[in-house]
Parts: sequence; structure tokens; C-alpha cells
Amino acid sequence: MRVLGIDPGLRNLGWGVVDVDGSRLSHVANGICRSGEGELPERLRRLYEELHAVVIKFAPDAAAVEQTFVNKDGAATLKLGQARGIALLVPAQAGLCVGEYAPNTVKKTVVGVGHADKAQVAHMVKMQLPGVVIEGPDAADALAVAICHAHHARSAEAVSAAEKMVRA
Amino acid sequence: MRVLGIDPGLRNLGWGVVDVDGSRLSHVANGICRSGEGELPERLRRLYEELHAVVIKFAPDAAAVEQTFVNKDGAATLKLGQARGIALLVPAQAGLCVGEYAPNTVKKTVVGVGHADKAQVAHMVKMQLPGVVIEGPDAADALAVAICHAHHARSAEAVSAAEKMVRA
Repeated sequence: MRVLGIDPGLRNLGWGVVDVDGSRLSHVANGICRSGEGELPERLRRLYEELHAVVIKFAPDAAAVEQTFVNKDGAATLKLGQARGIALLVPAQAGLCVGEYAPNTVKKTVVGVGHADKAQVAHMVKMQLPGVVIEGPDAADALAVAICHAHHARSAEAVSAAEKMVRA
Repeated sequence: MRVLGIDPGLRNLGWGVVDVDGSRLSHVANGICRSGEGELPERLRRLYEELHAVVIKFAPDAAAVEQTFVNKDGAATLKLGQARGIALLVPAQAGLCVGEYAPNTVKKTVVGVGHADKAQVAHMVKMQLPGVVIEGPDAADALAVAICHAHHARSAEAVSAAEKMVRA
């Protein structure tokens, strides 16, 4: 299974693609979609085109997006929401299921604790994907979301298999 | 000039199309894109498809979207942001300029006062677009945004023409 992880942001939208084979993870690619300068509609259009190109190029089987921490800054939340709309739309249009994970769930799955900082997340992503060169903090977060989805999908498969054995 | 007005919302996204010929406005169509039930990515995909179909069918020359009032409810702002991302993306992908107007500007242009309520807006939309049958409050707001854009575009044209006369 190939998983696309996405860390949504209006300026920089991080993405990371990971292959999952049983308990083995391997890095495929990671990067940043940049909305650049200009009017908001044009920036969203650029994010869409760049993320769409990633989906076409790497043909993932599933996608996962980090849930957004809603803070008191309404203007920031609105901006992020607009970028997040694109992050959810593009994989949905490709017919992919899109998992959503809370930041704490991602950190707990990848690092082992829910309150890990960005450097710890990047460190553990590198440990789990040997040889990876990470394009930046947003791409590291996106790879972490992909790894989180891989772990949860495997757990779900294991539960499903165990249920079948019990029923058999 | 044909203007598409959009009132973004995650559940109901209102749209309205108005033709502008000098100071004459005429109604073309209005309606509601509904995201329906289900997971958020799928709901956003539906909004995209429905709004995209409106753009293809009516081929507007410009679009206008109401600016979002950011309130203290972060979760509501995030939801609206996600729908708004789609509302800005679709016309941008069609190569349209997308005007953004504050709710007070829309009300002041259409009703004459910035603190008009929804019923007053719908009433004035009906006055300015004789014979219109409005599909609901979100469609009325979308028509109001389209009318607002038409007025502002005409003012901008008049200023530009006057400047040319002064220079000539």
C-alpha cells in the first residue's frame, strides 16, 4: 500500500509518500507545494495544481491529513481552512480514502509521546525511513502523518484478520 | 458582463448568476450546491463538482465571493474556510478574476445600509432582478454579491473612462 501524507498550510503544504509492505516502511518521495504570491484564489489554484501533480505522479492508494488545531486566531484558522479544503479535495477527487489524525495521535504513533516537538518528529521519521532526505519541516510532518496512517491501517488489518480467525 | 456570485458554506453553498449591461442588471440563474452527508473530503468533492458544473453551464466572465466573518467559534470558522477554499478555487481554475467583498459592503451596495438583515437583502435583490425566483437565503446572498460586484465593476469602469477623458 502506498500512502500520501499531507500537512496542510496556505503558504507551504507539505506532502510525503511512503510504501507500506507488512511492517516494512519505505520512503518514496516528499516535498512542499508552495502557493507563492498573489491573490488568494490564484494561490489556492496553485496549491491544487501542485498537489494534483503529486497524486498523478505517485499514484497513492490512500491519503492522510493532519487534523487542524483550531486556535483563537480566527483569521489564521480561516486561511488554514481554505488550504485544508484543497488538501482534502484533491485525494477525494482521485477516489482515495482520506484518513484524518489529530496532531497528538501522529506524534504518539511516530515518536511515542503526544507532546513531541518538531525536531523529535523529524528525527523519528528519519529513523523509520532510512536514507530519507526531508525537504523541510512541513514535509517531515507530512511523512509523519503517512507513517501514522500506515500503522493504523496495519492495526485495523490485524484486528480484521483476528476477527476472521475467531469466526472461522 | 456575466457575474457569478458565491455565498460559501459547507452544507449549502449559494450561487447566483447576473448579466450586467451598462446600468441594466438581469437575472440568469441561482441555486444551492449541497455537500450532503458523509465524510468531509467527499462533501468537499461534491461542492467542487456542483460549483464546477455551474461555471461550465453559465460561463461567467467574473466571480465574486462574500468575505467571511471570522467569529470566535474556531471549529465553525475552519469548516467555513474549507468550503470557501472550494468557492475560490473553482472560478480561479476557470481563469476568472474573483472579487471579494465584506458582508457590510454587499449590504450597503444592495440595500443602502450596512446592517440590513437577510429579509431586506432578499427583498432588494428581487427589486433589482424583476421576476427572479430565489432558491433560498444562501442563493439570495449569492445574487447580492453578484449585484455588488456589478456595481463596483461599473464604478471602476466609469473612473477609468473619466481618467482617459482627462488625459485626452
